[in-house]
Amino acid sequence: MFNIQYPVIQGGMIWCSGWELASAVSNSGGLGLIGAGSMYPDVLRHHIKKCKKATSKPFGVNIPLLYPQTDEIIKVIIEEKVKVVFTSAGNPKKYTSFLKENGVIVAHVVANKKFALKAVEANVDAIVAEGFEAGGHNGFEETTTMVLIPVIKEIIETPLIAAGGIGSGKAAYAAMALGAEGVQMGSIFAASLESSANLSFKNKIIEADEGDTSLVMKKIVPVRLLHNSFYKKIADAESKGASKEELLDILGRAKAKLGMFEGDVDEGELEVGQVSSLIHELKSVSEIMNDVVNDFNLTATKMLSIKL
Amino acid sequence: MFNIQYPVIQGGMIWCSGWELASAVSNSGGLGLIGAGSMYPDVLRHHIKKCKKATSKPFGVNIPLLYPQTDEIIKVIIEEKVKVVFTSAGNPKKYTSFLKENGVIVAHVVANKKFALKAVEANVDAIVAEGFEAGGHNGFEETTTMVLIPVIKEIIETPLIAAGGIGSGKAAYAAMALGAEGVQMGSIFAASLESSANLSFKNKIIEADEGDTSLVMKKIVPVRLLHNSFYKKIADAESKGASKEELLDILGRAKAKLGMFEGDVDEGELEVGQVSSLIHELKSVSEIMNDVVNDFNLTATKMLSIKL
Repeated sequence: MFNIQYPVIQGGMIWCSGWELASAVSNSGGLGLIGAGSMYPDVLRHHIKKCKKATSKPFGVNIPLLYPQTDEIIKVIIEEKVKVVFTSAGNPKKYTSFLKENGVIVAHVVANKKFALKAVEANVDAIVAEGFEAGGHNGFEETTTMVLIPVIKEIIETPLIAAGGIGSGKAAYAAMALGAEGVQMGSIFAASLESSANLSFKNKIIEADEGDTSLVMKKIVPVRLLHNSFYKKIADAESKGASKEELLDILGRAKAKLGMFEGDVDEGELEVGQVSSLIHELKSVSEIMNDVVNDFNLTATKMLSIKL
Repeated sequence: MFNIQYPVIQGGMIWCSGWELASAVSNSGGLGLIGAGSMYPDVLRHHIKKCKKATSKPFGVNIPLLYPQTDEIIKVIIEEKVKVVFTSAGNPKKYTSFLKENGVIVAHVVANKKFALKAVEANVDAIVAEGFEAGGHNGFEETTTMVLIPVIKEIIETPLIAAGGIGSGKAAYAAMALGAEGVQMGSIFAASLESSANLSFKNKIIEADEGDTSLVMKKIVPVRLLHNSFYKKIADAESKGASKEELLDILGRAKAKLGMFEGDVDEGELEVGQVSSLIHELKSVSEIMNDVVNDFNLTATKMLSIKL
């Protein structure tokens, strides 16, 4: 569908996935996505132009549908003839048919069954189902990848891409066994050399151990964060029953940029998945893709000898 | 290790897994476990005796180490020459060597890396790693099966059994691809014909949809519950920042028995996993085991044609 060598999609991530990361992933045989979530329309146009120069392979743009400038972002997409769009965090009904009429392949990211059905209604070309373990924004249902993939596979025929907890070939293999046709990986690419994230944030991902991320902000929009001072303030407030308003007050403004882009890893917001506990080295995208493919093949060989 | 046909273990579950369920699972080629958590020592002895009569295959006992009668329970195990014990919810150091000296194979259930390492130190024969999606008591880290299995596999050599989110052959296959040597399934056996749970509870499991369970009681011991009036009281209190004492007050006494055994599915505590959303029929244990084996084999065949 995406005309790519490996069914491996790099998740669009604010402050991490600019044209450098997206083109590196596409050049390595996956599908790179420019994350428009942290970009003004003009900045996005710049990244798209750079990405086109850096790769002749297909790439796409991820658009979280919760920002006020979405109309302008969509306009840039069409003008720049981007071939693939992944939408998330909003209703896919509004833009899917318009994008498709303009020759764009549209995938939509969901975290539960209800929104998967809405995406099917909106006639998207593919659905990304993202489990509870994923970094960044997530669903209220807290359904994990292990359960979410077969739950959605059971009710839809639209091509299904698994996300959440996937940073290796064996996890990709497991996700496909559960019913996914492809996988989306975020955290491991956030920590890659080509990611535009601050090196301090990348190092925090590499140091992260099991249990070092939590889903918070459930009274607003759930988001999985790496533990630090900023996280602790939110978690403490939530434990005491903080209201939506009190939480918004702690959240403040531009904390994601502060943490992930500017590198204040204590007071900034660090969005990353549970799989960070399995990421131990800062690698280039091509190394990551090689490792994923090799591990997938090793797993396939191992599974040949396992019978029930 | 357990001398069983299929590496499928039936999780020990209070009010669900008496001798009827355990013997049915063992007779179907898996490993049945009598759940001692809801049993006085004399009741457990009765179940063990019945189980021995009902099957010539290996079976075991699951012992949550948090009850005051654990010493007496262990005494019954030794006297009745039970060959396999799964311990959970406590420190495996206290009983493992004593049990092993008495010829018992010991597995210990953990939900995080830290306790996996403690279980290795205690020299257990196998480790069950249970993800966030699992029903009943769980870890504070909220690590999902997709991440927990490779995290633990990376650091231990002890045989590893995956639990949480597994109720089908494809999930078992995925768990083994992630690194597990076997799987433990709970919810699907709780909803089987041979489970000693109340039929009203079994029907609630069958009706459960995606998003219908949540992990609550994180200020005490996290537990995954099916949504009902009892759950709602806890969730509402937690949302307002209820203290440990207030939560214990709502919890009261014997709510698990009320819900799962006596069948008050509104006011009782219903412990079940996210995988309940994939359970659609009340089946016998032998049907369940057949389905799991067939689905595992179908998945293995499907995966032969999937390359990266």
